[in-house]
Amino acid sequence: MAKDFSTRDENYAQWYNDLVIKADLAENSAVRGCMVIKPYGYAIWEKIQATLDKMFKDTGHSNAYFPLFIPKSFFSKEAAHVEGFAKECAVVTHYRLKNAEDGSGVVVDDDAKLEEELIIRPTSETIIWDTYRNWIQSYRDLPLLINQWANVVRWEMRTRLFLRTAEFLWQEGHTAHATKEEAEEETQKILDIYADFAEKWMAMPVIKGVKSPAERFAGAIDTYCIEALMQDGKALQAGTSHFLGQNFAKAFDVKYLTKENKLEYVWATSWGVSTRLMGALIMAHSDDNGLVLPPKLAPIQVVIIPIYRKPEQLEAISEKAVAIMNTLKAKGISVKYDDRDTQKPGWKFNEYEFKGVPLRLAIGPRDMENGTVEVARRDTLEKEIYSMTDIETKVEHLLEQIQENLYQKALSFREDNSFRVDTWDEFKERIEKGGFVYAHWDGTEETEAKIKEATKATIRAIPLNNPLENGKCILSGNPSKQRVIFAKAY
Amino acid sequence: MAKDFSTRDENYAQWYNDLVIKADLAENSAVRGCMVIKPYGYAIWEKIQATLDKMFKDTGHSNAYFPLFIPKSFFSKEAAHVEGFAKECAVVTHYRLKNAEDGSGVVVDDDAKLEEELIIRPTSETIIWDTYRNWIQSYRDLPLLINQWANVVRWEMRTRLFLRTAEFLWQEGHTAHATKEEAEEETQKILDIYADFAEKWMAMPVIKGVKSPAERFAGAIDTYCIEALMQDGKALQAGTSHFLGQNFAKAFDVKYLTKENKLEYVWATSWGVSTRLMGALIMAHSDDNGLVLPPKLAPIQVVIIPIYRKPEQLEAISEKAVAIMNTLKAKGISVKYDDRDTQKPGWKFNEYEFKGVPLRLAIGPRDMENGTVEVARRDTLEKEIYSMTDIETKVEHLLEQIQENLYQKALSFREDNSFRVDTWDEFKERIEKGGFVYAHWDGTEETEAKIKEATKATIRAIPLNNPLENGKCILSGNPSKQRVIFAKAY
Repeated sequence: MAKDFSTRDENYAQWYNDLVIKADLAENSAVRGCMVIKPYGYAIWEKIQATLDKMFKDTGHSNAYFPLFIPKSFFSKEAAHVEGFAKECAVVTHYRLKNAEDGSGVVVDDDAKLEEELIIRPTSETIIWDTYRNWIQSYRDLPLLINQWANVVRWEMRTRLFLRTAEFLWQEGHTAHATKEEAEEETQKILDIYADFAEKWMAMPVIKGVKSPAERFAGAIDTYCIEALMQDGKALQAGTSHFLGQNFAKAFDVKYLTKENKLEYVWATSWGVSTRLMGALIMAHSDDNGLVLPPKLAPIQVVIIPIYRKPEQLEAISEKAVAIMNTLKAKGISVKYDDRDTQKPGWKFNEYEFKGVPLRLAIGPRDMENGTVEVARRDTLEKEIYSMTDIETKVEHLLEQIQENLYQKALSFREDNSFRVDTWDEFKERIEKGGFVYAHWDGTEETEAKIKEATKATIRAIPLNNPLENGKCILSGNPSKQRVIFAKAY
Repeated sequence: MAKDFSTRDENYAQWYNDLVIKADLAENSAVRGCMVIKPYGYAIWEKIQATLDKMFKDTGHSNAYFPLFIPKSFFSKEAAHVEGFAKECAVVTHYRLKNAEDGSGVVVDDDAKLEEELIIRPTSETIIWDTYRNWIQSYRDLPLLINQWANVVRWEMRTRLFLRTAEFLWQEGHTAHATKEEAEEETQKILDIYADFAEKWMAMPVIKGVKSPAERFAGAIDTYCIEALMQDGKALQAGTSHFLGQNFAKAFDVKYLTKENKLEYVWATSWGVSTRLMGALIMAHSDDNGLVLPPKLAPIQVVIIPIYRKPEQLEAISEKAVAIMNTLKAKGISVKYDDRDTQKPGWKFNEYEFKGVPLRLAIGPRDMENGTVEVARRDTLEKEIYSMTDIETKVEHLLEQIQENLYQKALSFREDNSFRVDTWDEFKERIEKGGFVYAHWDGTEETEAKIKEATKATIRAIPLNNPLENGKCILSGNPSKQRVIFAKAY
């Protein structure tokens, strides 16, 4: 299975691409820049969706659905937004095809040209705020806490499976509030949800921070983010939560009547995570043997494989295996018993190892005699013999251990690859090697741009609750009150 | 709330539209023909999705995701399919916008014209079968049982919320099989799932049948369907399951190696239900007082409303109400306790009645004294006083009764509006009044077309296991072996 598989050291980008394709997660489609998410990959995405969806609902949000299309003129209504988003977009200009006169197939019908072109949503602030104008009249209609699960399109020139594709899947929250404080609180609440999800479900430590002005969402007052460090030393922005102030309310004229009978513009937030999280998840833990998945997001948490020569051995093993499967399922653990006779055990071992199944149980004739099971952990690749008695408790415990171990391993990696740097030469050298580089910055967009130009590094985040510390900007030497995190990024 | 609301008798189409909008289910968007599904409507759709998704998974299907875009040339590959689908489509011709030179906003960048236009999927057979070519090599790869939840676009000229919109949400299953028999079995299995769902969850009786050639899916050998009768006497096709034979396998060259080492084309099915089901659900049960929802799909199954004058009364009632809510929730019943002080009880009664909440519990000071609750059923509008003791069992029982009652009521309606007709004059008269009309047809497309032209009625289904009966075609008088169902349809 893994024979044509690059190692991380040989070629990290190739390793990632091989992994995504050979582990049956996704592949490129016939449409440039668009991916097909295969069933195994989609099953992980469904777990991500279900978990986040519950977190959103538990905090009072409802789902809704808005059109795929946005009238072109909507983009021009918010000045900063149009600069950021109305560029590389899929544009619908016609609404009909007809048979070609020469019989060669179908052609666009020139008579069916739209009066105003429609843009496939790259993000939905404009169409949603245009709708909110009718939904919001008084303070009784607030807060409005809505989320949408949807596909969006940004016409990227250089694409990579999950990390950057023309079409991707995501959720986008769009909330409206009576006061600035409430909207700011919402922005933070969502950031906490994203960080919790990344750390507790994806086992991926993240830094919570705020973006510098240059890295802000087009149309936001403040963009908060969670940033993770990948194994190649590059940063990955895993989720963003935007405080939009009254920008969109003003652009789309959304006002509400206060309790005191005054008309005021509402305050807004928007926030999203996408199938990009799949890329983060894959890169955070996987190794040269294939995918490594945290148990909480693994579609198959435990696989049981029978080892036998004769059919009567299989029969006895199957009876035991099914019994174990059922006790595990009763505990809410997802188990696959793979008794296919078309593949050998060794092939199956490789297959599930490559696909990142956290625990593998193997039962052979000797195990049947001894009342034992061989248990292999995907994270450490360790094998151990356990008694069959009470195996479900051991499995449950091991899954928890694996979840925790993956998090700790990723955390150690980040700590080993976080650096404090005080001079420009040191900075350039360090940034080249990768990692999070904590350095002083004078706070100007000009300096930020120069640093990016010279090193390709960007300010990933100004950490929340950042300790204040007097220092000098690594580039300009001007005074600075805090360190910010620089890195090269996905 | 319901003051501007038409009755069914006054104007059925207006009644439907008013209901959808005033019950906060959906509304028209700024984009022609596209709807916004509002949180309350979307919550119903989520229940539909979750139930069907589990049914698909329990029968071995997995979800995946394929691109939104289909290259134009793909449509020309299957002859019948191109006739049916490559017509009223949204066509993407460009991939970039730029600032207008006169500063008036953004315009399409003529330099960013696609070499080949992309069509927004109206259905995904072509892109999926193009992908399956690489996924299927041998009999070991079969059956391939995949479903997709997605948005699709068909550029309809006359749209109605949920029933016919340019963009709609749906699931589309696409399966590949080694033999014709297996594919036919799959087509039937899915039809049974759809019928089960319609009858047991939506409380909507359906006829399972097969379509006449004229009504077949473009590219199918056979189209099976479930047909329901709405309260205005029109039929609504609620789901279709297509046996595609080897048409798409041949069009996209998808072959597999049999156990005997021969290369053969695979056999295919596709099947889908959409947000149209929301329209069916609304029309099947609702009345002149608003929405009526079957308990199994109601986002709120029980609402509890406190009735009080003084704050201390509210406090005592709330304690009791929350206790009842918790015992109901422990039984898996979704409950809302509405103690808002911004609205009066009467307003709330109307609101939840209009929104179709199956059961309303009201608790006032006298109930507190007597240990009672007033329980109102949405389906019958009956009110009754129950003792608070063991109220959760009574509520559970009532919800089951309502579910069953709605089904029986809809079934009686269908029986009362099904007719056997033997002459052309009788047929024309009957069809005009609505209902399912069982009549003999000579089996030719010509006659079917003439009947449609004369009466606007179509053959909705040839029922499965249809009793054979010799007769004469109502129009041509030619011999016929069975009756088929005619109706005017949505």
